[in-house]
Amino acid sequence: MHQNQGPVYYGDYLKLDQLLNSQEPLSRKFSSSENPEAHDEMLFIIVHQSYELWFKQILHDLRSVAETFSLPSLPEQVFGQINVRLNRITKIQNMILGYLEILETMTPMDFLEFRNLLIPASGFQSTQFREIEILMGLKTHDRQSIDKEFFLGRLSAADKEKLISLEKTPSLLDQVQKWLERTPFTNQSTFNFWKEYQKTIHHMLEQDKETIMSNVAKLTPEHQQLQLDNLKMTETTFDSLFNENLHMNLVHEGKRKLSQKAILNALFILLYRDEPMLSQPHRMLSLLMDIDENFTTWRYRHALLAKRMLGTKIGTGGSSGHQYLKKAADNNQAFMDLFNLSTYLIPRSILPKLPEDIKKQLNFNQLN
Amino acid sequence: MHQNQGPVYYGDYLKLDQLLNSQEPLSRKFSSSENPEAHDEMLFIIVHQSYELWFKQILHDLRSVAETFSLPSLPEQVFGQINVRLNRITKIQNMILGYLEILETMTPMDFLEFRNLLIPASGFQSTQFREIEILMGLKTHDRQSIDKEFFLGRLSAADKEKLISLEKTPSLLDQVQKWLERTPFTNQSTFNFWKEYQKTIHHMLEQDKETIMSNVAKLTPEHQQLQLDNLKMTETTFDSLFNENLHMNLVHEGKRKLSQKAILNALFILLYRDEPMLSQPHRMLSLLMDIDENFTTWRYRHALLAKRMLGTKIGTGGSSGHQYLKKAADNNQAFMDLFNLSTYLIPRSILPKLPEDIKKQLNFNQLN
Amino acid sequence: MHQNQGPVYYGDYLKLDQLLNSQEPLSRKFSSSENPEAHDEMLFIIVHQSYELWFKQILHDLRSVAETFSLPSLPEQVFGQINVRLNRITKIQNMILGYLEILETMTPMDFLEFRNLLIPASGFQSTQFREIEILMGLKTHDRQSIDKEFFLGRLSAADKEKLISLEKTPSLLDQVQKWLERTPFTNQSTFNFWKEYQKTIHHMLEQDKETIMSNVAKLTPEHQQLQLDNLKMTETTFDSLFNENLHMNLVHEGKRKLSQKAILNALFILLYRDEPMLSQPHRMLSLLMDIDENFTTWRYRHALLAKRMLGTKIGTGGSSGHQYLKKAADNNQAFMDLFNLSTYLIPRSILPKLPEDIKKQLNFNQLN
Amino acid sequence: MHQNQGPVYYGDYLKLDQLLNSQEPLSRKFSSSENPEAHDEMLFIIVHQSYELWFKQILHDLRSVAETFSLPSLPEQVFGQINVRLNRITKIQNMILGYLEILETMTPMDFLEFRNLLIPASGFQSTQFREIEILMGLKTHDRQSIDKEFFLGRLSAADKEKLISLEKTPSLLDQVQKWLERTPFTNQSTFNFWKEYQKTIHHMLEQDKETIMSNVAKLTPEHQQLQLDNLKMTETTFDSLFNENLHMNLVHEGKRKLSQKAILNALFILLYRDEPMLSQPHRMLSLLMDIDENFTTWRYRHALLAKRMLGTKIGTGGSSGHQYLKKAADNNQAFMDLFNLSTYLIPRSILPKLPEDIKKQLNFNQLN
Repeated sequence: MHQNQGPVYYGDYLKLDQLLNSQEPLSRKFSSSENPEAHDEMLFIIVHQSYELWFKQILHDLRSVAETFSLPSLPEQVFGQINVRLNRITKIQNMILGYLEILETMTPMDFLEFRNLLIPASGFQSTQFREIEILMGLKTHDRQSIDKEFFLGRLSAADKEKLISLEKTPSLLDQVQKWLERTPFTNQSTFNFWKEYQKTIHHMLEQDKETIMSNVAKLTPEHQQLQLDNLKMTETTFDSLFNENLHMNLVHEGKRKLSQKAILNALFILLYRDEPMLSQPHRMLSLLMDIDENFTTWRYRHALLAKRMLGTKIGTGGSSGHQYLKKAADNNQAFMDLFNLSTYLIPRSILPKLPEDIKKQLNFNQLN
Repeated sequence: MHQNQGPVYYGDYLKLDQLLNSQEPLSRKFSSSENPEAHDEMLFIIVHQSYELWFKQILHDLRSVAETFSLPSLPEQVFGQINVRLNRITKIQNMILGYLEILETMTPMDFLEFRNLLIPASGFQSTQFREIEILMGLKTHDRQSIDKEFFLGRLSAADKEKLISLEKTPSLLDQVQKWLERTPFTNQSTFNFWKEYQKTIHHMLEQDKETIMSNVAKLTPEHQQLQLDNLKMTETTFDSLFNENLHMNLVHEGKRKLSQKAILNALFILLYRDEPMLSQPHRMLSLLMDIDENFTTWRYRHALLAKRMLGTKIGTGGSSGHQYLKKAADNNQAFMDLFNLSTYLIPRSILPKLPEDIKKQLNFNQLN
Repeated sequence: MHQNQGPVYYGDYLKLDQLLNSQEPLSRKFSSSENPEAHDEMLFIIVHQSYELWFKQILHDLRSVAETFSLPSLPEQVFGQINVRLNRITKIQNMILGYLEILETMTPMDFLEFRNLLIPASGFQSTQFREIEILMGLKTHDRQSIDKEFFLGRLSAADKEKLISLEKTPSLLDQVQKWLERTPFTNQSTFNFWKEYQKTIHHMLEQDKETIMSNVAKLTPEHQQLQLDNLKMTETTFDSLFNENLHMNLVHEGKRKLSQKAILNALFILLYRDEPMLSQPHRMLSLLMDIDENFTTWRYRHALLAKRMLGTKIGTGGSSGHQYLKKAADNNQAFMDLFNLSTYLIPRSILPKLPEDIKKQLNFNQLN
Repeated sequence: MHQNQGPVYYGDYLKLDQLLNSQEPLSRKFSSSENPEAHDEMLFIIVHQSYELWFKQILHDLRSVAETFSLPSLPEQVFGQINVRLNRITKIQNMILGYLEILETMTPMDFLEFRNLLIPASGFQSTQFREIEILMGLKTHDRQSIDKEFFLGRLSAADKEKLISLEKTPSLLDQVQKWLERTPFTNQSTFNFWKEYQKTIHHMLEQDKETIMSNVAKLTPEHQQLQLDNLKMTETTFDSLFNENLHMNLVHEGKRKLSQKAILNALFILLYRDEPMLSQPHRMLSLLMDIDENFTTWRYRHALLAKRMLGTKIGTGGSSGHQYLKKAADNNQAFMDLFNLSTYLIPRSILPKLPEDIKKQLNFNQLN
């Protein structure tokens, strides 16, 4: 605990002099009698500055989580802390999504008053946002070409270098993968529950097939075929979970990011989340998915806003932001493998029973 | 004002006996010692019942607005009322979007406990939701084939008939179109501001072209070409606004819904929204776009949830709800023509000046 | 897992016939050519019906939690489930708080059109809401007189009886108290950390005194005295935590609800929340406080709304709802003792170290 | 419209160098091996800095509205703009209320790690927040004594002077009052609807009395008396609206802020809001009330948070923030007179009819 070091003043503590003198609308700088300051440029600046403040906070929490994961072994106590910080990130994301509603109080016509002054500056040039993406586990070379151009093409040399070197350090995805590989749930020789689990899944998919075939759903033949093809694909990807070669091929094709071992251990955590020892790890995996999903929603909503503001006009970055954002919303999830696992969840009541010794290891030392 | 008609009790007034006895979980009905009631089925029921209550309210407000529009002439006083009701609908939409967060407190594994019991019931079978869509102006024949099947294929004969006959009555889109065609802003013989406006737009697109060509944006040649093609298309669609034949072709191809006259009058309202008389009509058009956009967001978020709950497993309706919803989110906007107009908005400061007599007609009788 | 029992239809499953025929505006029933239906009465009904649906869900979850607590011993596994359900309740509360914003789209003048028809029905007569309050742990005899009248005075005989008999069964507060008393953290003979903790607290209060006395805060003498009196009171209540007789007196005076033993064990959980075994119990206590606080906010916001709708006019229940609600917001927290504990929290870094054997008991069986 | 002035970069435009170097946690500055940096101090700083950015935006919009009101006459066109900006302020308020939820992810124990370092800095020292309050119309001398001390006692000499001189310029309340006094609705010699309106109100209060007296409400005699006293008071304050001397007395006692003329014209706007010309003025008055109410809710929620963080411990400002904030939430509404008018609203259907010439003046020049 820190002790008082002498009186502190609110304005000094928050460096308000510096903070509140960081807003310089270009339409003020270049204003004249015919071209007065555009009142709403201040809003535009403050929205983006607030985003950057919150990105700094997200990075602060994300880096501290990554640092914790770099420890050789994780004491159980730290999971509480990790989850508090990941949870905070999701709350920040939800809150800054609301900024869009405030930005929309500026009409397209008000935006157009000063849009030309900003070219080619663009929100895509936020170095902090890219740091977040890279830290989460999105690599530049995974991106689609149009995306890549946006991702690195518009930054200062210093920022570009900073991001490229950041890509060389382990991301959260890398570190979570290592931790997952280290967890011992799938190692135990005595432990052949995976076989039983596979049987259960195949039975479930069999039932889905019957549902499709039975006439209750009243599908057209084409639609029925579509469903059956879909089911076939689900079956194939499921089988690949247990086939190391198939799995490695999928990783090479960029269709999976995590190793087979990591994925199976993640699946174990999702399935047995009710065991006390898995409660915090499960929450952690869920929060990572939430963070991913929230960024997806964020990109999607920005695409809608860009369309509303500019239609098909080019954006301040000299490109159609709307189309880019729409595409970006569909991909770019670092933890996509965890999302895909939801296909393989089964009801609690048909979960294979865990052997007693495993079950005991997942519980507390008994007090009472 | 209504006078008291005798004492009323809260529970009677709200028919709570009936309301609170409308929840019968199937997993309770078919429960046994090995298959106990699934606790979370209650949540599933209550979420969907609350949706239906709010759909009823949305229909109540939407119908009252449509009824007002069916009057031969609209007194200015009613626009305030119309906007209060449309605004209420947007608030309801935003609020029920939050239901998803509550539904997500049910984990996929809890949902799977009772999913099989529900087949082939599905949220796509909400007759009220379709009534809303039809009332807004989405016709069955405008939908894509997979969508059409969902739209009508799974309902009871009575509901199907109800919806088909609803499609034959004028939708809000139809009525707004008629009202727009009736407004006199583009009729005035003295009034040739449209020419000036076209010049302004062409000048603006010219500038966009320069921005693309100049090297500041550092685009790759492919990307540059993409942008130029995009710009060309914007120009062509703009020109079609003023060419009745071109416009009619676009309507036939399903690329536009409103008549040329209606669109131009809508554009006039968007451009001159600051004139007192256009303030409420402008708000109305904005609210209609908000409602459209909110339903789009709603479908999109449901698609994400469906994926999270079931992965690629089939949904309770016997089909992959996730894929359907994703597709549905991209189309199905009744007032899409209004959205597209944002491409043709220009800054206030370069708006062509209105002739004095028009300007006067758009203002109040002077009091002071 | 339940198996399909035959085709189910959406409308039948949700009993939509019954649900969507439960709205009968009185202004429609008593409408005439001069007194047409009040359009907004539908909104009023649907808001309140949705509240009641969600109250049913809250009761469903709250009862299941209370049932779990009535087990003779709680396996660690169930805490995850308890917290999922309590967390769901907080999310429902936050969401239905948003109903107020929708209700506000009805102006006071629109409400007055049908207000007289409702007298003396009133939201205070929601039996389900009282069931929730009682289940949480608010007893009628704890309430202030004006409050008591509202709490039981306006119900049907059957509902009154139902509530009175509910009061005789153990509330969540009672059951959490029993569980807290049973936890062994303060029993251990070897364990005298409480002494060290008391020293720490006294030191902290000493520092607060210095802060008040030093001139940095520039307080007026009256204000300074106020602060010192305040500090004195904090000290006294703190001492009472460790003095069983003093504590019992406070319980008799209605100033504390939990027993000394329960409070100290709760304090232990709050202080050592980072230990793995206390993570879920800590979350549970936090969620109970959240639920309490959310109901408080809910009453407060209703008071503001009532004022906005009616000013100082009497409400439909024949009384000034505004004043009542304002009063109710200030009291009526079942878990107030937990809130008051925040005064006695100290920074992690000066927490007394736990003896090794205790620390081990609070951790998992080691796997790795 | 502004033209491009040369390439602009995102980071330069937003002065990110300056902005993102404004966070210096004191616990970092004074860190040592035993007292490491408190991770959550960053969150504390960023939350408060974001508040300050948004306060700057609120001031930007509020000042522009005040400036518009200082024009000798308001063209109808500007009301649209005024309302866009006031509406934006309400949206910002709602959004920053959500910051509290993020701040709550910092536990009391984490806060205590660095609390001592901040003394006596305190959120009450935000000069911008006071500027907002003063600009809205809250004068220092209207405040209660404890409040006054907080309001001016803790600022730098420069800030104090700035605020004192701001108090001497006309506030928004002053300017809205002048505008209300200038509106001609109550001047017309032909216009004696106020008499009819008074009759209607007396009739309504008579009915309320009957409701209280009749036994349907089943009130205790004490409660009934309370209601009757309450009603009497409502009647008296209503009468004072039409009695200039009584009204001036209330102003002197600080119970009313607006002049009689201004209040009656405001009441007229509230009652006849459906007339086209009153639509925007009505929205403006509503938004001013919303802004007032949102600040009230903000203070209230901060009081709850302060209690949760510190209990009855003293805050960083050296005082019990909790109690202060609670008190502040109950008073301090600049536009309280508008709130109180809701008592005197009546249903549309019994509104006195306006004379034809007045009605015509409130409508548009007819186009069709």
